[in-house]
Amino acid sequence: MRVAVFGGDGFVGWPTSLHLSNLGHDVTIVDNLSRRWVDTELGVQSLTPMDSIQERRRIWHQVSGREIGFEVINIAQEYDRTKQWLAGWRPEALIHLAEQRAAPYSMKSDRHKTYTVNNNVNATHNLLNAMVEVQLDAHLVHLGTMGVYGYSDVGATIPEGYLTVGLENDDGSVRKEEILYPANPGSVYHMTKCLDQLLLAFYAKNDGYRVTDLHQGEVWGTHTDQTRRHEQLINRLDYDGDYGTVLNRFLIQAAIGHPLTVHGTGGQTRAFIHIQDSVRCIEIALENPPDRGERPRIFNQMTETHRIRDLAELISRMTGAEVNLVPNPRKEAAENDLQVDNRQFLELGLDPILLESGLLEELIDVAGKYAQRIDIKRIPSTSAWTREIGKNIPKIVEFRKLSSRAF
Amino acid sequence: MRVAVFGGDGFVGWPTSLHLSNLGHDVTIVDNLSRRWVDTELGVQSLTPMDSIQERRRIWHQVSGREIGFEVINIAQEYDRTKQWLAGWRPEALIHLAEQRAAPYSMKSDRHKTYTVNNNVNATHNLLNAMVEVQLDAHLVHLGTMGVYGYSDVGATIPEGYLTVGLENDDGSVRKEEILYPANPGSVYHMTKCLDQLLLAFYAKNDGYRVTDLHQGEVWGTHTDQTRRHEQLINRLDYDGDYGTVLNRFLIQAAIGHPLTVHGTGGQTRAFIHIQDSVRCIEIALENPPDRGERPRIFNQMTETHRIRDLAELISRMTGAEVNLVPNPRKEAAENDLQVDNRQFLELGLDPILLESGLLEELIDVAGKYAQRIDIKRIPSTSAWTREIGKNIPKIVEFRKLSSRAF
Repeated sequence: MRVAVFGGDGFVGWPTSLHLSNLGHDVTIVDNLSRRWVDTELGVQSLTPMDSIQERRRIWHQVSGREIGFEVINIAQEYDRTKQWLAGWRPEALIHLAEQRAAPYSMKSDRHKTYTVNNNVNATHNLLNAMVEVQLDAHLVHLGTMGVYGYSDVGATIPEGYLTVGLENDDGSVRKEEILYPANPGSVYHMTKCLDQLLLAFYAKNDGYRVTDLHQGEVWGTHTDQTRRHEQLINRLDYDGDYGTVLNRFLIQAAIGHPLTVHGTGGQTRAFIHIQDSVRCIEIALENPPDRGERPRIFNQMTETHRIRDLAELISRMTGAEVNLVPNPRKEAAENDLQVDNRQFLELGLDPILLESGLLEELIDVAGKYAQRIDIKRIPSTSAWTREIGKNIPKIVEFRKLSSRAF
Repeated sequence: MRVAVFGGDGFVGWPTSLHLSNLGHDVTIVDNLSRRWVDTELGVQSLTPMDSIQERRRIWHQVSGREIGFEVINIAQEYDRTKQWLAGWRPEALIHLAEQRAAPYSMKSDRHKTYTVNNNVNATHNLLNAMVEVQLDAHLVHLGTMGVYGYSDVGATIPEGYLTVGLENDDGSVRKEEILYPANPGSVYHMTKCLDQLLLAFYAKNDGYRVTDLHQGEVWGTHTDQTRRHEQLINRLDYDGDYGTVLNRFLIQAAIGHPLTVHGTGGQTRAFIHIQDSVRCIEIALENPPDRGERPRIFNQMTETHRIRDLAELISRMTGAEVNLVPNPRKEAAENDLQVDNRQFLELGLDPILLESGLLEELIDVAGKYAQRIDIKRIPSTSAWTREIGKNIPKIVEFRKLSSRAF
């Protein structure tokens, strides 16, 4: 199948591209390399030394004998080029990961908020708009987030995208309807994924387009079977306060003897998935498109839920790392429960990789190997959700003092 | 009160600005004059001869002794200028009408879809973002649309923004919750107003901003008490297939002896409001802000509902105009019922202007007066919702033939 991976140079995009290429699909990456620009902007680099996309593709060809195509297009800004490229290559499936994906980055300043909204909404809309325009009967698989549901306690399992509700009619009778789960985003980034849902639903309804939306949990791990095949195929691994996902951050902190930085009480419960399962889920979604005319098919792309402080304690027990409770820069419930339905992927054959395996140690090993590349000043999360909250977030220099206890 | 009217040069914006200025508010219009550019693009002009915004303001000063300020800013594209202006003038309330507001225009081509999404989403987000950034504790009043609810038959009255639903807990018990009414937009334009709702809700929640969202019905009429005060204060009046609202189009068609063009069976039921009530509702909303920390306050800004074919028949009886059923360029239910709750405005003192009054005749008189300005080629709606539907929409030349029967 001709598969275009938009955002194929990113943390999930790169291993997805390798995974699909390895399965025999004809893969082209379309990426404006914005994530590398953000590295430059923030002055933080991936913990793992990451080659250029061109070099990565060369190595992949050498290792696998397979080619991955590459186009530099900013799909959010360059509608016409996006359209022309789609009209020419005519992919049969589009994997859309071409969005700014970090909640703290989206809350960093007004400029970052504007960028995130403008980039993410236009990227998604331009793809849909162009597909219709060039009459491309392809399946669009969009990477969303569990964060569209919000993290408040609701006393019920989070369903896969759609919620059955009872509604009162004017005559007093009650009817049941399935509605899109009410959006409850906790950051500008999460909000953009809620906007995406409405864009996807509209084009599925108006134009009969086949759309799948993957509500992904926090991704952990860095290696997949394909990135392990050569040192230069290594995936990026973010440890900083903006782009590092929570479990990866804890493991990296443990690897270098830094205290585990737990926001607030650590009472937040989140959903998790290993990067290997993430790429496997995308493969399954690709193989199971909805029919034309169906509403978007929504999967919860996660395999387990954990309370943050339980994770911190687990890793502390494994490694002896200290746990430090630090002020929470986010505006969120201090404590929440979370039960999530993920039956669709399980029924379609996903065999989940859970936390108990040796993968936690593997990641600590990777972190240890590249420990000299870590700038500990960049570990704290300093993007505050509001000005008021910002007053309680220690400055970088204080964190430095805090961290130095561990060295 | 210092009130900024974003989009104050438009069809609702101009009479709103006059109305608020007349009440003694210190009004500044912020507008990029994009609606005038669209006139140029489409080669259609307002039926009423409309002066420049500068000239209109001069006349208003002459007639009322009051000044209305004016700034040319593209709030969707010029975030920094928007922010600087807000920081300097520090309005106490912002009326936000600065969005592309025609469903047919939004469906005209892929370029128009891209423009509508990019313009509307960034305009709303930039305002919210800038307000937070410059710590402007102002009330934001946003003009939304009844179209966010969709026009499918649900057997229940449309509530004012929020819907009470019954939800099943994991233990089998049922809890009641109030949720934002599920979005069901029928065009790219309506979709952007659904996206706006989520933007407004997020900033109200995260930053405690006071936000009111007005879900307006189809506006009819052109004059308000203030636009009547001088010929050069006249409001714009659109008769074309893109920007003309349905009832105004029928009245204008009747005035020139053109058949009334009813889409499909005319079985669509829609909500209506007279332009005088529209500006009065905005005044009421301005006087009744929500508290800081409250979710957005949503009003249904409409006063009555009618089936389209009933309106056509009413006007046909009044004027002797023919009624022509033409293929519907929209993808929508052929027939629908619609009951709408609008108690909030009634309780706050709105005394609705209904269709039975002399205002229908007034509009026919206005149309008759400027009849020589009408290009009948521009009357048909030619923006088709999908390529398939487009095949059934007669070309302009055929419509010309059709219309010539009336002359």
